[in-house]
Amino acid sequence: MPTSRRHRSLPLVAIGSGRAGGQASLSEIGEFGFLERLRRLRIPRRGVELGIGDDCAVVRAGRRRLLLTTDALVENVHFRWAWDTPAGLGQRAFAVNASDIAAMGGAPRFALLSIVAPRTARIARLEGIVRGFVAAARESGCALVGGNLSAGPHWMISVTLVGEPFGTPLRRSGARAGDHVYVSGVLGAAAFGREILLRRRRGSPRQTLAFRRPRARLDVGEMLARTRSASAAIDLSDGLVSDLGHVCRASRVGALIDPEKLPFAPPLLRLAKDERLALALGGGEDYELLFTIPPGRVRRLEESARARSLAVTNIGRVTRGRGIRLAGASRPSSAVFAGGFDHFRR
Amino acid sequence: MPTSRRHRSLPLVAIGSGRAGGQASLSEIGEFGFLERLRRLRIPRRGVELGIGDDCAVVRAGRRRLLLTTDALVENVHFRWAWDTPAGLGQRAFAVNASDIAAMGGAPRFALLSIVAPRTARIARLEGIVRGFVAAARESGCALVGGNLSAGPHWMISVTLVGEPFGTPLRRSGARAGDHVYVSGVLGAAAFGREILLRRRRGSPRQTLAFRRPRARLDVGEMLARTRSASAAIDLSDGLVSDLGHVCRASRVGALIDPEKLPFAPPLLRLAKDERLALALGGGEDYELLFTIPPGRVRRLEESARARSLAVTNIGRVTRGRGIRLAGASRPSSAVFAGGFDHFRR
Repeated sequence: MPTSRRHRSLPLVAIGSGRAGGQASLSEIGEFGFLERLRRLRIPRRGVELGIGDDCAVVRAGRRRLLLTTDALVENVHFRWAWDTPAGLGQRAFAVNASDIAAMGGAPRFALLSIVAPRTARIARLEGIVRGFVAAARESGCALVGGNLSAGPHWMISVTLVGEPFGTPLRRSGARAGDHVYVSGVLGAAAFGREILLRRRRGSPRQTLAFRRPRARLDVGEMLARTRSASAAIDLSDGLVSDLGHVCRASRVGALIDPEKLPFAPPLLRLAKDERLALALGGGEDYELLFTIPPGRVRRLEESARARSLAVTNIGRVTRGRGIRLAGASRPSSAVFAGGFDHFRR
Repeated sequence: MPTSRRHRSLPLVAIGSGRAGGQASLSEIGEFGFLERLRRLRIPRRGVELGIGDDCAVVRAGRRRLLLTTDALVENVHFRWAWDTPAGLGQRAFAVNASDIAAMGGAPRFALLSIVAPRTARIARLEGIVRGFVAAARESGCALVGGNLSAGPHWMISVTLVGEPFGTPLRRSGARAGDHVYVSGVLGAAAFGREILLRRRRGSPRQTLAFRRPRARLDVGEMLARTRSASAAIDLSDGLVSDLGHVCRASRVGALIDPEKLPFAPPLLRLAKDERLALALGGGEDYELLFTIPPGRVRRLEESARARSLAVTNIGRVTRGRGIRLAGASRPSSAVFAGGFDHFRR
């Protein structure tokens, strides 16, 4: 039985016909290793503005652009029943998907919910999941329009959201050297909460809420899209370093982060510095947004964030070259940079 | 470990707040029992033309209508690795979802593929699934635009398709007394093939293809939508009696089927009559379309089917009242009517 793993959304890259290494297992080469081996197949491009590889796909339906994203929560991998109520889990299933819509600067409109449940499952659990999901979706103006229920050995909750962008969808690939790196909200609260649930750390049940009940930053994504202030954006699911790494690779740039500027979640403030940094930079699942702002648009961003009472923090700069560096550190600490979570490696 | 179960797509009905019986298990009340207990939650309707309960949801994006559907294949529930290649499985995963788009009279445009795989999974399997899926999608002009890969104890393949209707989407609810009941293609081939795979029956590997590699009848759905000939439609996933039952309930009508007119698949012709009927009426997974045609449009339907070389067969009539009857039978045979497949009951 796998131990708890935090959730991550992996863009599935189309696969080439390469056979070398086909006998390897996912745990041997890892999820990222697998992705690196994949090559694009010939996929029809009609109506596809942005395919596999960002938080959402962008497609066209007539004149409208649509955002499409899918993600799954697996029992004992992404969640444990001991950790939350079924309704809480339903809420989480919506939020982690809506976060991908937020990162593209859109609003979720339509949801599909596919549940696999054991034959012995209590109806109350199923009802609770759907109720929590629908309530969270409704709060965001999103309608559950379809779904599927199948029997299976373990619980699995798979969600697809269809969203609409406010203006031009935000991508990972637009960051340029000199842009400022920002995050919304605070960092490390979810990782701190997860460690409490895993009994690796003491804390109150309230402190686990950031992990159990994340909220998609649809407000931040809407602001970025409407004000056209961001050059790139991503949601913080894997961890700041890992997710910033996705932006840097997609944009062919590097980044310099100032640890002194990081907006640590309150529970982290009493921790030792290295521990605090590890949780904030590598912890993941905060579902805040990370985005880059060209120097000429910093004022616009800061003013619109203030006007909307949204907390955003400048944590560093985009640089030429590759790699992510920490200011004041000649080379990255392995504790901090262990954040590139990979499902298939332990 | 559950034994093999054939695939079925279950429209997930929104859940009310009823608590009575929440401690019951899915296996006790069954999937349909669960659905009957569900009541609609207050779901935002903006842009939703048709919500939960048909083969697809119908939503609006600007002036365009979109069809949305999702379905999952679970290892040892819907498929066994011994039965087909990974690419064959990927092809099947696309087809069973595309069939829902076909039943609404549309074409699949964009696909999302979410895979749960064990950590020990061989890369070749994953590649094969995606390759088969993409190939089948491409053949239908559909693009894989996103996906997700998660670790889990068992394989699970969850698919979401976004489609576009040719004209007004076909629904289950439009059948009227006096309409003719039609099916496309032949019946029972998939059930016959499944029984070979389960070693309940002898037959050639070729005869299992109808089960392992169904093809969505996108051609039939397009014809029905373009010629505006059908009053209702559904795809044959659960079995003819069960699926016709869905149409009858949604349309508040009954039906009279003439067993003499059923287009039996060739392998069924050498079977005893009862066995043949059971497979054709209750077997399921043929993924042909069942549709109803008002008397005034029968000629149009027959002519357009002939012009497109599509085999369609008139198998009975829609009647007043409720229930499905077989011509020549005073009451339904339990063998025949055991077709209402329910995942959660054995």
